[in-house]
Amino acid sequence: MENSSTEFDFVDNGGVTSPLGFRACGITAGLKRSGKPDFALVASDSDCSAAGTFTSNLFPAAPVRLCRERIAAGLPVRAVVAHSGVANACTGEQGYRDACLTAKEAAKCLEVPETAVLVTSTGRIGVQLPMEKVILPGVRKAVAALARDGGSAASEAIMTTDTRPKQVAVRFRVNGKTVTIGGMTKGAGMISPRMLVCRPHATMLCYLTTDAAVSKEDLAAFLTDGVDVSFNRISVDNDMSTNDTCLLLANGASGVAIHAGTPEGEAFLAALTMVMQHLAKAMVLDGEGASKFITVEVRGAATTDDAEKCARAIADSMLCKTAWFGNDPNWGRVLAAAGYSGATFSPENVSLDYDEMPVVRGGMDAGTPEPKLCEVVKRRSFRVLIDLGEGVRSAIRWTSDLTHDYVTINADYHT
Amino acid sequence: MENSSTEFDFVDNGGVTSPLGFRACGITAGLKRSGKPDFALVASDSDCSAAGTFTSNLFPAAPVRLCRERIAAGLPVRAVVAHSGVANACTGEQGYRDACLTAKEAAKCLEVPETAVLVTSTGRIGVQLPMEKVILPGVRKAVAALARDGGSAASEAIMTTDTRPKQVAVRFRVNGKTVTIGGMTKGAGMISPRMLVCRPHATMLCYLTTDAAVSKEDLAAFLTDGVDVSFNRISVDNDMSTNDTCLLLANGASGVAIHAGTPEGEAFLAALTMVMQHLAKAMVLDGEGASKFITVEVRGAATTDDAEKCARAIADSMLCKTAWFGNDPNWGRVLAAAGYSGATFSPENVSLDYDEMPVVRGGMDAGTPEPKLCEVVKRRSFRVLIDLGEGVRSAIRWTSDLTHDYVTINADYHT
Repeated sequence: MENSSTEFDFVDNGGVTSPLGFRACGITAGLKRSGKPDFALVASDSDCSAAGTFTSNLFPAAPVRLCRERIAAGLPVRAVVAHSGVANACTGEQGYRDACLTAKEAAKCLEVPETAVLVTSTGRIGVQLPMEKVILPGVRKAVAALARDGGSAASEAIMTTDTRPKQVAVRFRVNGKTVTIGGMTKGAGMISPRMLVCRPHATMLCYLTTDAAVSKEDLAAFLTDGVDVSFNRISVDNDMSTNDTCLLLANGASGVAIHAGTPEGEAFLAALTMVMQHLAKAMVLDGEGASKFITVEVRGAATTDDAEKCARAIADSMLCKTAWFGNDPNWGRVLAAAGYSGATFSPENVSLDYDEMPVVRGGMDAGTPEPKLCEVVKRRSFRVLIDLGEGVRSAIRWTSDLTHDYVTINADYHT
Repeated sequence: MENSSTEFDFVDNGGVTSPLGFRACGITAGLKRSGKPDFALVASDSDCSAAGTFTSNLFPAAPVRLCRERIAAGLPVRAVVAHSGVANACTGEQGYRDACLTAKEAAKCLEVPETAVLVTSTGRIGVQLPMEKVILPGVRKAVAALARDGGSAASEAIMTTDTRPKQVAVRFRVNGKTVTIGGMTKGAGMISPRMLVCRPHATMLCYLTTDAAVSKEDLAAFLTDGVDVSFNRISVDNDMSTNDTCLLLANGASGVAIHAGTPEGEAFLAALTMVMQHLAKAMVLDGEGASKFITVEVRGAATTDDAEKCARAIADSMLCKTAWFGNDPNWGRVLAAAGYSGATFSPENVSLDYDEMPVVRGGMDAGTPEPKLCEVVKRRSFRVLIDLGEGVRSAIRWTSDLTHDYVTINADYHT
């Protein structure tokens, strides 16, 4: 994915306001009982083309419906409202009206068309928004707080069970001019996105900004490619949220036009992929209760579908995830998960490695002493590599372990 | 399923030796480090017809291969060996030879044909059996220990992470004669059987005996019907084992012949279903770390497949299961699981009830005060009923909550 002739730099403390022409903020509107920041706004000084991917849950939150409609309409976008604490899902027509009202208030304050504002949300399902007391005053407060360096504050205001903000920005040069792509994400539970390719998932919200000028068609293509090798690779639990949203806004403020299918387009996609992979990995590392980052790689599959099924079964297996938490090399659980994944292969051709250690050869114990395997699974980050010995297809998934903290966080979330 | 003209009785402390002509035992062979009983044998004094269902994991344990071959061959069965502690899975040809040797030794001691002995196992994957030191002496010791009242001892010897033995027997009368069906099961983790219908699952072992005379064809049909409404309804985790086996032996010692498609056949199936549902529910209640028994019922689905998908998604959802553990009514998680299950429905037609309490009507909060819902989800056993409002199909699953103890048990299993 790296572009051979282009250099990419991570921006120090970069985020959604690293690209030119974007402002953001994070404020306390009053949705969270904790009193922590719960309301973010990202705005562009000029019109943006926009692309988005969304949950395919049959109960999409009201803001998801709003974003889908407005992005499909293809009109310019100027701002995105993000609030945490209340999901505005399973709230019926009132929920949808409230999402529209939120956008309308922001549009009025920003002096932009109503259709130019998108809304996203995360939090408790089934609760109506406190519009008059919290949301509308929050919108006005947020618009007043917008700042050129507000990206970090925004990344904190979108957190729910996240333990830390997750943001990044990457820049590269095109014909002497600098293009920057920034992003922030939240999401720690209900994480199992299968966006675009299959079905989107998880309360993960991701906001991407760039100062390149990109048509909405090319933007959608770049976003699809990026999601495929980033957020679609991660699992924290196996639950798909009602609110998943990933948005990409391009305002052209850098003066650089990017077209798909050109060398500049390739560089753009490479940078976007760096941003999205960084955010996706950060999301797994900050997964609810996670103490470890595990890369599950499947090779030698007969088909890509087989590779994906096998990687997903291992990455989602509660028994594998608890074993990893327990520093237990228990490779039988990995093989068992591969065996029920639906992938086609011959057991006697299967190899398994944990980082540099051979674990299974020919479907049986490779003979590496257990203490050596324990050393690997004790690591904060390691790779589980299974070769099915059937073909040349492969797949990668990033996952975490299943810990007591996961149970504590999710059993106590309502309090 | 109940037969209107037949009375069914549970046998006091009943199990696999409640039917006439069966003996059993549970002894310590030395497979478990704990020194607890780890070796069981069930034997019939006369030839049995046999039926079985097995894991469809691509890594079937060696004993699964042996049982499949012998039951497919259709020869009479006289005994089943069961050992816990070592799964004899991912052990290659040596594992298979060892399973055959185990059967051969038992056949020699019992003075029956080698092909008349089945073998089952559960425990650690990827370890070869200690044949000379443990298994073969264990076989000889077990044959010597066989007793007419040995069912309880056998049910204890097949336990792994189970906290209690699970056995039951039901009897009914046919033309003045008594037919008895007994059973025992083990299984607390890796529980997600989808036997026959889709794909079998879970280290669950189930041994069923009856003194009725039933042809092997009818026996297979009865077993399929019984599994469908018992073990195929349960989820503890979502992991499919390499060793799942459910065996049904019929020795005819009651002098009663049972044929499918007759009133007696219906009574037999009703009794078998009672035995299997009792064991399946007991397995969920004894699920690893489980503190609650939850019945997930889906009604109003357009198709049976939709109903099954929806019930499975809710019953398997880690977020629902942790919420139940936390006494949290969090119905948003239930609806979210339904929404990503793949079932087709309109959100605005969905109803949800927790036992007698309405939770959701028309896809939104039904207005029952949260404390009322908390009362229900605090119960040791409750029902989550979702009506999709699309049609007349339904499905039931039995599941447990996800607790700290589940994580502890599975993170520490290797020690």
